[in-house]
Amino acid sequence: MIDYQRVLSEITAHCSSSDQKGMIASYIPELANVSIDKLAMHLIDSDKNTYAAGDATETFSIQSISKVLTLAQAFGILGSDIWKRVGVEPSGDPFNHLSLLEQENGIPRNPLINAGAIVVADILVSHLENPKQDFLNFVRTLTGDSNIHVDSAVARSEERTGFRNYATANLLKSFGNLQNDVATVLDFYFHQCAISMSCAQLTKAFYPFMNQGKCLKDRTHLTQTQTKRVNSIMLTCGFYDEAGEFAFEVGLPGKSGVGGGIVALLPGKYCVATWSPGLNAKGNSKLGMEALEKLTTKTGQSIF
Amino acid sequence: MIDYQRVLSEITAHCSSSDQKGMIASYIPELANVSIDKLAMHLIDSDKNTYAAGDATETFSIQSISKVLTLAQAFGILGSDIWKRVGVEPSGDPFNHLSLLEQENGIPRNPLINAGAIVVADILVSHLENPKQDFLNFVRTLTGDSNIHVDSAVARSEERTGFRNYATANLLKSFGNLQNDVATVLDFYFHQCAISMSCAQLTKAFYPFMNQGKCLKDRTHLTQTQTKRVNSIMLTCGFYDEAGEFAFEVGLPGKSGVGGGIVALLPGKYCVATWSPGLNAKGNSKLGMEALEKLTTKTGQSIF
Amino acid sequence: MIDYQRVLSEITAHCSSSDQKGMIASYIPELANVSIDKLAMHLIDSDKNTYAAGDATETFSIQSISKVLTLAQAFGILGSDIWKRVGVEPSGDPFNHLSLLEQENGIPRNPLINAGAIVVADILVSHLENPKQDFLNFVRTLTGDSNIHVDSAVARSEERTGFRNYATANLLKSFGNLQNDVATVLDFYFHQCAISMSCAQLTKAFYPFMNQGKCLKDRTHLTQTQTKRVNSIMLTCGFYDEAGEFAFEVGLPGKSGVGGGIVALLPGKYCVATWSPGLNAKGNSKLGMEALEKLTTKTGQSIF
Amino acid sequence: MIDYQRVLSEITAHCSSSDQKGMIASYIPELANVSIDKLAMHLIDSDKNTYAAGDATETFSIQSISKVLTLAQAFGILGSDIWKRVGVEPSGDPFNHLSLLEQENGIPRNPLINAGAIVVADILVSHLENPKQDFLNFVRTLTGDSNIHVDSAVARSEERTGFRNYATANLLKSFGNLQNDVATVLDFYFHQCAISMSCAQLTKAFYPFMNQGKCLKDRTHLTQTQTKRVNSIMLTCGFYDEAGEFAFEVGLPGKSGVGGGIVALLPGKYCVATWSPGLNAKGNSKLGMEALEKLTTKTGQSIF
Repeated sequence: MIDYQRVLSEITAHCSSSDQKGMIASYIPELANVSIDKLAMHLIDSDKNTYAAGDATETFSIQSISKVLTLAQAFGILGSDIWKRVGVEPSGDPFNHLSLLEQENGIPRNPLINAGAIVVADILVSHLENPKQDFLNFVRTLTGDSNIHVDSAVARSEERTGFRNYATANLLKSFGNLQNDVATVLDFYFHQCAISMSCAQLTKAFYPFMNQGKCLKDRTHLTQTQTKRVNSIMLTCGFYDEAGEFAFEVGLPGKSGVGGGIVALLPGKYCVATWSPGLNAKGNSKLGMEALEKLTTKTGQSIF
Repeated sequence: MIDYQRVLSEITAHCSSSDQKGMIASYIPELANVSIDKLAMHLIDSDKNTYAAGDATETFSIQSISKVLTLAQAFGILGSDIWKRVGVEPSGDPFNHLSLLEQENGIPRNPLINAGAIVVADILVSHLENPKQDFLNFVRTLTGDSNIHVDSAVARSEERTGFRNYATANLLKSFGNLQNDVATVLDFYFHQCAISMSCAQLTKAFYPFMNQGKCLKDRTHLTQTQTKRVNSIMLTCGFYDEAGEFAFEVGLPGKSGVGGGIVALLPGKYCVATWSPGLNAKGNSKLGMEALEKLTTKTGQSIF
Repeated sequence: MIDYQRVLSEITAHCSSSDQKGMIASYIPELANVSIDKLAMHLIDSDKNTYAAGDATETFSIQSISKVLTLAQAFGILGSDIWKRVGVEPSGDPFNHLSLLEQENGIPRNPLINAGAIVVADILVSHLENPKQDFLNFVRTLTGDSNIHVDSAVARSEERTGFRNYATANLLKSFGNLQNDVATVLDFYFHQCAISMSCAQLTKAFYPFMNQGKCLKDRTHLTQTQTKRVNSIMLTCGFYDEAGEFAFEVGLPGKSGVGGGIVALLPGKYCVATWSPGLNAKGNSKLGMEALEKLTTKTGQSIF
Repeated sequence: MIDYQRVLSEITAHCSSSDQKGMIASYIPELANVSIDKLAMHLIDSDKNTYAAGDATETFSIQSISKVLTLAQAFGILGSDIWKRVGVEPSGDPFNHLSLLEQENGIPRNPLINAGAIVVADILVSHLENPKQDFLNFVRTLTGDSNIHVDSAVARSEERTGFRNYATANLLKSFGNLQNDVATVLDFYFHQCAISMSCAQLTKAFYPFMNQGKCLKDRTHLTQTQTKRVNSIMLTCGFYDEAGEFAFEVGLPGKSGVGGGIVALLPGKYCVATWSPGLNAKGNSKLGMEALEKLTTKTGQSIF
């Protein structure tokens, strides 16, 4: 049996001594002010045992990791009708490129690039009564933790400076693939990205994806088929134009955020989260990716 | 000596009998409601003689033709510094594509595609005291006619539905190539496009471009070099992805608008405007292009 | 315990009654002449039990499936140096597009698109003494079956008509990413694609990929890490611009060929092959994909 | 009246003192070995007076300048049927990009990019009895000079190293837009590019383009309409992705070659050629472009 605690401790010890920690996202002050030395890992196995290393209960901005959670909620609401408005293919391009969206007539390649996540946000805005609160409640329920909040300063900063997201939403609107106002949808989108969570909370929130749709309290949030499909999308699309590299090096479905968080999972075995705010050139946490590569190598386990 | 009046009359007689008149732009009601049968030509020669055929004094929405006039005003203000923010190469792509803009880091290919014209609008908003009024006055002065107005209903319609222009402006902003607010710049831009003019007025407004920068009243509005350069941009970029075709078939610098107008000129000889609201697949006036092709063929004159 | 034989029989019974069988590849006569009604499945589980349905021992042209086998041989020879010349990211584009290759300076996105496979072919031509024979022997050894042959008529047809592959190889050469002559490399490439195998043989050939690198005779052909990496590439890149869809619907690493074959595997559990020559619009076997979707749904097993 | 001799002397005096001469094309030894200090201008006016400065009778490799001459010959043979196989729009992209060709299904944007010139070469190979000799004779006749030759060493070098041209021709073939063998067409193409001419010879060869189709001996080689159309293509497409810049700075139809030559013309007035082997970043002669910009500025004449 694998001693996950020892593995996590070894990995974080090794990573914390690295002098190649990447660059912190600097486009808004709230992200830029985080210490480059923050490092955390947290893992929950299928027996609900938890293992922690580093700052595992300190919260950070989950950013794009939220895209999996909105997808899960929208998938639960719409079922497979969701695929009429967004695809499931990897984009092979950086996360914010509009070119593909234009060439493909306003149908985003997948729900984990910005364009796709904005369509998913539009779906939730259409279907939820109080979209921002209802989505936050969904995350709290999934995690089994009511102490999860939106960092309003982060949301406001993105609202002021997120010109590329405004460009994307308007382009979607011009193609008829946005039903609500651009401002309303992006207000929701900026709030979902501004949720703060710790590695410990993230592993709980993503527990259903490794457990056939059931959360830690054994409530079913997604069907087994839906779970499998969200996992496949995480694997092929979860790391922007580095998705192939992550599948290749790590071999787990997962999702990263520019706040430096990554969450990943081995179906039926465990869910794991890492946090290190320094990013590589592709916008994924540099040490986070290394930590997860070491995890699958040391344990000899991956989906492949 | 060429009998321009006879040539215009023959051409409009021939064109009005065509049953292939193209499609009227339908994206806003104000353009869609114009009769497909409208047809006009107006020509001023270098001796200031004027020749008219059809509805030559009826006004229509000049739309993208305004881009040459904002370029002229901005070029006059900034001089060649303008080329730091916009290029002079043909785009080879439809008029509204964002892909190129993204690939080329927010520097539009030329000032006659939407992205480039929005940058020019931004320059005017920065440098004019009352941008919308000052630009309108510039057009009135150039034309020597104070009876030129903005059709506010057209401007408002575009403001409500111009999502792709909002996308473009936000993308420019994300690249740092827009100094003012998106809303302010687009308000100006939608107003410049919503100016109504007749063919007779357009030939007067563009008289300086065929007369080394001097208007009908012999006032200098552009230097000889600036005039030559604006003409070269009209030739290589004035007809979206049909610029080569227009140069090939017609052989004159010119500019079209989705309202169905085209203005063109033979340096030192004449300035001509046509109006027929039916557009071809590339968004240029179908009969207008045919009329101008006939003009250069019948007169045996072109820049080539 | 799953009754694979019953599952295969049910699936092939269902598929053979479909009247939506796709279109047979017609670009060379040797492929076009195969009957649209051919249908086969073959599965080997981790206990080396085999299960067959339909024409499971009839051979067909494996075409692009060969790309995984050349990759395995080249990976074994070069180790991770191979990734200096070819990437591991999904292309998001049809299998034969040159645009990406040009934009990315001659480094193919991954080894399972044509451009990448031609680079892999070049590597084998450089490192093998008798490239065509040595590679065929590698396939025979992997499969444990000396009765595997190249269909020379298929190879010759592709040599006469494969202009796009000549274009690709010359473009690679222009970027310095092809060490041997275009003609020599493509001669090898056309031969590797022209290998004929049955579903039964394919499951044996791919057995090592589900068994940590060891073939049915327990000889090690790839390290555990190399096996995992080839599997991840199959998952993210094995189905051209339908890779996401296959991961989403089926959830197994696999590879298709235009001859109508697909091979897929569940690490540690089984290796499966299907054959139905009718292709969907993306160039993958239509019924083969449906059969594999049913397999993972009926068995409730996938990597996700 | 303009003293062209004085103007040419002033310009060449000024250019020869420049220390920014660009970079000599180095991809084949025959081009790389030319002295960077070579500089020549030659002009013929409409009265057939000639003016020379610098090495105006020294020959160099005309390279892409030949594309205008093959176009003229093919246009004369096929008439406007030629436009079924090649377009007339500027490419907006570097001269050798395959991406556009692929996106646009094998119809090259215009006859002055490599892909388009290869289609034109294919047309000549189909219609001429002895293509290489017949085309050389056409150039000799146009020029009125039998002392024009192909530099076989240049042709052979390009044959050995022109992988991108092989890629292009094969891609055209895959789209069905090449009727003859790739090898045969490229053999012709490499020979047309390898013609050596002096500036003096080039102005004679291009005299018909400024003289409504008639050569110095008053023989008609192109109709007036064909002449006008070839000139428009030179203006919009003659300088790769710097065509807009050349139109903007110089304002004349023209064509450049990587051998450092440029030929340009003012319809009805003069034809001019320059030679300086140093190229700018876009592959056009650096001093040649400057010399022509000075020519139109000093004389105050251009098509605009």
